[in-house]
Amino acid sequence: MAAAANALPRHFSRIVINQVTPQVEGGRWAAKATVGEQIPVRACVFTDGHQQLRVVARWRMLHRRGWTWTPLQGRIDDFWTGNLVFPEVGAAEFQIEAWRDAFGSWRSDYRRWLKVGVGPLEELPSGLEMVRQGLERLPSRERELIRRRLQDLQGASQARLERFLLSPDLYRLMERSLRARPGLRSEALPVWVERTRALYGAWYEMFPRSEGSRQRASGTFVSAAKRLPALAAMGFDVLYLPPIHPVGETARRGRNNAPRAEPGDPGSPWAIGSARGGHTAVNPELGDMDDFLAFQQQARDLGLELALDYALQCSPDHPWVKLHPNWFEHRPDGSIRTAENPPKRYDDVLPLDFECQDHAELWQACYEILEFWIERGVRIFRVDNPHTKPMLFWAWTIGRLRREHPEVILLAEAFTKPALMEELSKVGFSQSYTYFTWRTRKAELTSYMTQLSNRSADFLRPNFFTNTPDILTAELQAGGPPVFRERLVLAATLSPSYGIFSGFELFENQAREPRSEEYLDSDKYQFRQRDWRQAGPMADLITELNRIRRQHPALHQLRRIRFHSVADGRVIAFSKHTADRSDVVLVIVNLDPGAPRSARLTLSLSLLGIRPGASFRVHDLLQGGTEVWNGRRQLVRLGAEPAPALIYWVEP
Amino acid sequence: MAAAANALPRHFSRIVINQVTPQVEGGRWAAKATVGEQIPVRACVFTDGHQQLRVVARWRMLHRRGWTWTPLQGRIDDFWTGNLVFPEVGAAEFQIEAWRDAFGSWRSDYRRWLKVGVGPLEELPSGLEMVRQGLERLPSRERELIRRRLQDLQGASQARLERFLLSPDLYRLMERSLRARPGLRSEALPVWVERTRALYGAWYEMFPRSEGSRQRASGTFVSAAKRLPALAAMGFDVLYLPPIHPVGETARRGRNNAPRAEPGDPGSPWAIGSARGGHTAVNPELGDMDDFLAFQQQARDLGLELALDYALQCSPDHPWVKLHPNWFEHRPDGSIRTAENPPKRYDDVLPLDFECQDHAELWQACYEILEFWIERGVRIFRVDNPHTKPMLFWAWTIGRLRREHPEVILLAEAFTKPALMEELSKVGFSQSYTYFTWRTRKAELTSYMTQLSNRSADFLRPNFFTNTPDILTAELQAGGPPVFRERLVLAATLSPSYGIFSGFELFENQAREPRSEEYLDSDKYQFRQRDWRQAGPMADLITELNRIRRQHPALHQLRRIRFHSVADGRVIAFSKHTADRSDVVLVIVNLDPGAPRSARLTLSLSLLGIRPGASFRVHDLLQGGTEVWNGRRQLVRLGAEPAPALIYWVEP
Repeated sequence: MAAAANALPRHFSRIVINQVTPQVEGGRWAAKATVGEQIPVRACVFTDGHQQLRVVARWRMLHRRGWTWTPLQGRIDDFWTGNLVFPEVGAAEFQIEAWRDAFGSWRSDYRRWLKVGVGPLEELPSGLEMVRQGLERLPSRERELIRRRLQDLQGASQARLERFLLSPDLYRLMERSLRARPGLRSEALPVWVERTRALYGAWYEMFPRSEGSRQRASGTFVSAAKRLPALAAMGFDVLYLPPIHPVGETARRGRNNAPRAEPGDPGSPWAIGSARGGHTAVNPELGDMDDFLAFQQQARDLGLELALDYALQCSPDHPWVKLHPNWFEHRPDGSIRTAENPPKRYDDVLPLDFECQDHAELWQACYEILEFWIERGVRIFRVDNPHTKPMLFWAWTIGRLRREHPEVILLAEAFTKPALMEELSKVGFSQSYTYFTWRTRKAELTSYMTQLSNRSADFLRPNFFTNTPDILTAELQAGGPPVFRERLVLAATLSPSYGIFSGFELFENQAREPRSEEYLDSDKYQFRQRDWRQAGPMADLITELNRIRRQHPALHQLRRIRFHSVADGRVIAFSKHTADRSDVVLVIVNLDPGAPRSARLTLSLSLLGIRPGASFRVHDLLQGGTEVWNGRRQLVRLGAEPAPALIYWVEP
Repeated sequence: MAAAANALPRHFSRIVINQVTPQVEGGRWAAKATVGEQIPVRACVFTDGHQQLRVVARWRMLHRRGWTWTPLQGRIDDFWTGNLVFPEVGAAEFQIEAWRDAFGSWRSDYRRWLKVGVGPLEELPSGLEMVRQGLERLPSRERELIRRRLQDLQGASQARLERFLLSPDLYRLMERSLRARPGLRSEALPVWVERTRALYGAWYEMFPRSEGSRQRASGTFVSAAKRLPALAAMGFDVLYLPPIHPVGETARRGRNNAPRAEPGDPGSPWAIGSARGGHTAVNPELGDMDDFLAFQQQARDLGLELALDYALQCSPDHPWVKLHPNWFEHRPDGSIRTAENPPKRYDDVLPLDFECQDHAELWQACYEILEFWIERGVRIFRVDNPHTKPMLFWAWTIGRLRREHPEVILLAEAFTKPALMEELSKVGFSQSYTYFTWRTRKAELTSYMTQLSNRSADFLRPNFFTNTPDILTAELQAGGPPVFRERLVLAATLSPSYGIFSGFELFENQAREPRSEEYLDSDKYQFRQRDWRQAGPMADLITELNRIRRQHPALHQLRRIRFHSVADGRVIAFSKHTADRSDVVLVIVNLDPGAPRSARLTLSLSLLGIRPGASFRVHDLLQGGTEVWNGRRQLVRLGAEPAPALIYWVEP
């Protein structure tokens, strides 16, 4: 028993720090940030008894020396909050540090005595003693200054002593002295900082082969490049291309996913690999590597960054099938297993066996595909079906990318259940596809955005695509142009990253068959051509939205979105604001845009940074014009043009 | 790079396990359980791809060999759930274990092929191969059986092979084989298992000195013992006594907390210690140690367990002040600092300095106080103001108690902010006082109970006192007997542990001054006597409530409480049910009990275990009688007697 008692620490802290965020599973995974982003940091910090606390968040980039401090503000519930801003790409860490402020507590207690008219003489020596001890930790100049003051004050009156001990200058010095000793520190938590594009950007998806000049012939990088200026003019940041590699011949799919291709059918670009090469080759129908590089350079010159598809699967004609048959899964009879999801089979695609005997070689080869394209200037990859590969493979791949190519951005096509979708983001995907396309009603959108902007915001960055080559929702099929405009506004304003798949501008809404989300005559299985001259009105709206996005930092972030009350269940209203509320954007969208409607808003003025009773100016960002609003209740009218929505900038 | 690739593991799991509960800060603290309690366990378990999973929770008592398995049920959202039941007091741990079930997945895939009319011949060899590999992990008898079956089946028809591979018997054997190899295991999480009284019990608080026979003279253990049969008859389980130690003379407080005691005033029992002894002495006015032990034995014989107060502070006359002046905090002039919270001073109490130079000795001495009383049969302590002592002191104290006296129960008088209140429970207090007394409206009660029964239920067990010597709420002061009855029913049914402070039965509701929660003529500062003959009606209600509590296991638990919709905002309705729904209790309380009222309930029938459309019987547990209810909507009438409440047992 004596031994147990002796095992007590000589020094211990009476402070408790817990519930620190951002953190992902207790620090098992890094939280996410982008350069310059305001990352809210929060911790529950308290002590037994009544002493005052000083709390900071300290952080550093792992490849630099030295820590930076950000003071945190305490709330009545013992949570302390602030914002961290990381200056560059790379691995960072932060921790919470807290001190019990004995002198500050003494000072505040003494003031409470004074308030009831008693400055208890017997408390002054304690205050002086704290100053005497504290000055030892001050720089010599300040130390000497205070030492002399203390000498002067020997035998001074109570009033003079009080004046000295309660002075703000002394308090500032004592606080400096306090922080000169390490406080209690929480465990350091990892943060991975990416470039801004990982969080914020407008994406456009396009099959280059659909940008040809002749029906039933492949577009090329050369012909597709003619489309680039229009995309840049609309204000897109990223141009994502489905796989550009040679397409397999064996079991090639025909138009509209017919089991057998007709002569001339190009097949699905996701059936990667032929005698002409695999994941590091360019489909000769599109051109050669030089054509690709020229296309990329033209895009770059227009401010468009290219994103390639990273689809880890092979057509039966992929060179790996012969060179590395052991990288595929075999049946007992030695045949290679094709992709299947009973009762369906996909004979044109062979999945890789990430658990095969030689998986180290396979994983290395997969990584080398990324390196190959990175060497050729690609920095963004949209990853096909990541949820069918082992998490450990992604952890390993992303770990290497972060060390070797920290500027690379990966978008996870994680169309799977929430747990797995979130895990991929935790493991390190920069962005994720989401359920946005299927969240159409007000309650669904509200709860989904609340979750994305809070619970999972530390690790999952959404990219809201309005449509994809695989997803033409029932809502778009039935609703026509008004719904297209509504969904475009929602995607572009709810999420800092959003995208459209080409054809959306033309209101393409024909499904292959009833109850299917597949496009009729989908680009996936055939050459298509589109008459972009028809895209005018929608292109104008896209251009406007991307301009508004660029001009308003409130829309560059995932967090700090709040929903406002609207009497009409088919109208949604939300605002986004920057951390300092210097930019506040209010968006109101008609979710049933078949007809114009009026809506009664009840705004949460404090969320908009408006004092109760104050009048404030709002600027209509889509149609121009300024209004003066007064009070929380507003009646707004949602027309059809240019969109069934209103976007206001709320003047501070 | 080759090195990095070679660093890959040869074997790895494709399963992910996260979000395991119960867990307290990632396993830093033990979750709480009592013997036989149904503890819900939950984990998010999933894998990339489509393979089926088998998931169990395995647990053990640390002092026993061997693990027990509890299979978990999967839900669509990848959370797996079940219940753990621990059989004895002590430290336990559990972890989640999961396997990918390749054969089960093959079997289910094959059945999906069969559904569309194709049993693909080429899949049968894979199934047979899995059986061949799996049987190696079976006991020899079963292994030989299957081996012979496989030989018989050589060259058999597809139909025979299918019959064999899809048979339930084979599946059960293959599952056994699967589990013979360890699956992926989550980290083990700690659970501390206590006796039932840590969770469930009815408490009574009484000053023995108030149970005297003469005004202005101290009751004694002998005179107070006369009250024991009545307390036992009311069905109380625990009798808690404020400090029974000698009371200090210096700066003793007078009646109603007067700064100076009159001759004969007994002082606050929390000013512990005099020349007659400290924390291990009995106040001679109450009797001697033998009297205490006899009192305790009489209580025990009546089924009442005694709880003592553990108040770590000293009167200026406590023997420690002279023996161990270094255990107290000193001013620079050498004087000992009294308890203070500016602008108030409590001169009759000196706080201990838990950070003093000799804190190891002090902590040991504090522990020895507990040991002293434990040796004398006490197993429950109500801990005074634990939130003013270091958390590390409690962690150390409770750690030793758990090793040396695991049957001891500590109730934290943690009247402080939520973070600190919760931390004390995490550190290990068995129970905590709560904010119940100040949660009076329906929305407050609903949200507070929802939090207590969910978010903090893994570590914090509430004890709902209706009143304490320090807390006579404004609601009780103003509301009179109907509110006393309402609050009693709420306390006794919302929380498995509840208590009253003596006088509650007499509807004592006079405050010392306006806006004070202090009792007029409080037992804390004077001798009081009460005429228990006036307590009849309230004693009957208490007796009934404690009887109902005993008979209904649904009321012995904190979890599994759900609120039902009531049109009237001043009527609250909730039900509690056991994990298997064999016991379901429905409680409806008038929160504005000045007048009788009717209330329209809309019950969530599924919570009550009732099928939609079924009629069901409910038994009125307070007034007797049975009704047959039909449908979710019910009109109930809440009278005044015996309480402004209805308590129903819902027949399964």
